[in-house]
Formats: sequence, C-alpha cells, structure tokens
Amino acid sequence: MSTHTRTPLSPTPRTTVTRSKERARSDRAELDAVLDAGLICHLAVVLGGSPVVLPTVYGRAGDTIYLHGSTGAGNMRAAIGADISIAVTHVDGLIYARSAMHFSMNYRSAVVRGRAELVTDEDERLEALRVIVEHAAPGSWDRVRPPSRKEMAATMVLALDLAEASVKVRTGGPRDDEDDIAAGGVWAGELPLRQVWGAPVPSADLEPGIEVPAGVADRVDSAMPVALR
Amino acid sequence: MSTHTRTPLSPTPRTTVTRSKERARSDRAELDAVLDAGLICHLAVVLGGSPVVLPTVYGRAGDTIYLHGSTGAGNMRAAIGADISIAVTHVDGLIYARSAMHFSMNYRSAVVRGRAELVTDEDERLEALRVIVEHAAPGSWDRVRPPSRKEMAATMVLALDLAEASVKVRTGGPRDDEDDIAAGGVWAGELPLRQVWGAPVPSADLEPGIEVPAGVADRVDSAMPVALR
Repeated sequence: MSTHTRTPLSPTPRTTVTRSKERARSDRAELDAVLDAGLICHLAVVLGGSPVVLPTVYGRAGDTIYLHGSTGAGNMRAAIGADISIAVTHVDGLIYARSAMHFSMNYRSAVVRGRAELVTDEDERLEALRVIVEHAAPGSWDRVRPPSRKEMAATMVLALDLAEASVKVRTGGPRDDEDDIAAGGVWAGELPLRQVWGAPVPSADLEPGIEVPAGVADRVDSAMPVALR
Repeated sequence: MSTHTRTPLSPTPRTTVTRSKERARSDRAELDAVLDAGLICHLAVVLGGSPVVLPTVYGRAGDTIYLHGSTGAGNMRAAIGADISIAVTHVDGLIYARSAMHFSMNYRSAVVRGRAELVTDEDERLEALRVIVEHAAPGSWDRVRPPSRKEMAATMVLALDLAEASVKVRTGGPRDDEDDIAAGGVWAGELPLRQVWGAPVPSADLEPGIEVPAGVADRVDSAMPVALR
C-alpha cells in the first residue's frame, strides 16, 4: 500500500489555476471524482530534454496515483524519480456560442504534477496493479489469474502523490457578449456528449457456457459516471 | 495559412514506436484520421523545469496543428518556441482478459512532438482560429460573429508541425496466454465504448424562433467518427 498520508487538496503556486478561475474547484472530493471517473490519463514526461505526452492507464489509492508499464519502456524509465504530470479529462459537451471566440466545451479536468517514485516493495507493487485493474474493470481482479512472478519482474510501477493537483470544471451554456445576445439571430447552446458502453463481445477463443460476469454486464447501456454534474 | 509543406509521416528516432510495435501505424491517412476525430488534445509543456500536461482544443490544416490560448496564459507562453508534445486519444473499448496483466484497451492514439512556433501573420492567425472552431464545430465559423480586433489581440496562436508523429491503434479481443485459454472458466472479451452526442440544449438567453442549425442537429444521436475500425 502507499506510504503517503492523506492530505487535503492544497494547490501550490505551480498548480494554482490562474486562468478562468471561476472554473477551478478546490474540493478534494471533486478531484477524486474526476480521477476516479476516468479510464485513461495522459502522462507527460521529459525525454531527451523534450516533453512527450502519452495515454496510459492508472489507478488511485488515497493520495497516490499508480502508473505501470514495461520495464523496457523508455518513457516509463525516463519518469523514474523525475517530475511528471498527468491529466484526466472528461468532455461533457460542446458549447456553440454566438461568436467564434466564445465557443467552448463543458468538461471536468484534473491535472497533477509531482515526482514519480519507483515502487519497489513487492506487496505495494501487487496492490498497485490490483488498483489499476480495478480502476478500469471493477470486480475483475479476484476473477482472473493474478500476475506471475515473471510478469511482475517485467513490470514497473510508479507512484505519484496528489499533493499538487488542480481541478477545473465547466458546466452550463454559452457565455456570450451582451452585444451579441442583443443582436440575436444566431443559435447558441450546448450539445452534450457522453461515453456509453456497448454490448460485450466475447473473445473468439472463449469456450461455450461462460456467462458475462455481473460487473461487466452491469455496465452495458450505462453512461460513464458523471459525478459532478 | 501555414507555411509548412506537406510531408509524409516519417518517424524520427524520437517518435518511432518501440513498445507494442504491432500497434504502430505508419500511414499518414491514419494519423490524420485519429487527429481529425478528436475534440481535445492533451498538450505537454515544460514549465519551470517540470512537465505539465493540459487539455486544450486544436485544429489541423495539412501538416500543421494549431493551438490557441490567452496571451496571459503562462502555460501557453512557456510553449512559444519551445519543444512541446500533444496527444489525441480515442478509447474504443475495454479488454477483459483471463489474467490481470492482459487487461487492455482498444484505442486510437496519435502523439506529436515538435517545436511550437508562435504564429504572427494576422491572416494565418485568423485562419488558425477558423480551423480550430471548424474542427470542433463544423459549419459554425461562417454562422457566428468573427473575432474582433480586441479578441485577436488577446489571443495567442501556436503552430506545431506534424513531422514527428506516431500513431498507435489497438483493435480486437483479448490476447491471453495459451495456458490461461486452455485452463478455461474465465470470461474474456471486449466491452466497446463510444462517445455519443445528446440532444442540443438551447442557451437560456436564446430568443424564440431560432432553429437548431443543420450542422448541430445532424450530430445528435450520432457517434463520434471512428474512421479506423
């Protein structure tokens, strides 16, 4: 398990939102909700002196974000002990405004910055992998074969503390200029966007008679969680 | 317009995919398809010596990705003339495997690295903003008020060349170990995920009698484009 203690969301000067301050949220529960509702994060690392951003899976345990990757992955190796950043973003709608510069999106976004620590304790490494699998596919870990010794040896686990994190949320309709509203004649509004699970597709090599697990079946036709709307 | 010439997708050593090579695509049309299907990208910049990743809107014109932001935004100012990276990722499904380490996702992902050039030509700046608005909301630019001189002065436009780009695509079902398949008894398959537009919500301050534009109405109940499946 993580050795990090639970702390409130306390933006440092680096993570204090300076643009669109009305969209910044400081409640820790909102940070957790945005992080927990995501399937992937985007990870930024500095590689050869230049930033690179990559999509990757993750999980959260208390104040710790866990990431994992192959021990052979250069991007992950570059992150060990280095400053990194992750973002989890949900796009909830597109805002059609009366003027080009007021087009916008409704979204929930969490950005975390900090040092990526290599997790070396074998119990924490296994727990981190459980957290990552359960994050994306709740209820799956106890149903499937756990990692083998060989798989564990080929896997790197990184921990990122949530001490430096910020959350931004935009909801509602367009915020047009008064002159444009008064002029009228232009449609303005929101086109909502949501992610929806489809029907499960059994693997081509699945033997007959295996039921879709409840945790999978329950997701079908359900939208991704939208805790903040 | 961009002064960049059109070049084929030619990975440099920095963008050549070294992990999961079977998931890398080198066709330029696939890069464009992944980029064009996205609503937002994640932008990585180095700020105060450390990377930060942020969601932002974008548009593509030929070999150029355009980004924009407020002239007062520190993240955008830090990007001027500096190396940056953007990623556009679509999650198309969750892969339930028979073992924890084979859980995966079906996805389409484009990663671009390069130097962000400040666009200073006023015609190109305006064209870039048109490209960005039309990317997210096709058919909208000519329908709404264009940027004012004041809005243009407050807006920074950056151009990123697509010369260093890579595309990764995963499709299909689980790739389980033979022993796990032979052991049987565990459900495995894909749970597809898609983004769907909902019904338009007119702005609370919209006057009566304004029809939803065809370009907005056409999107309703349609999934986001999935060009590569």
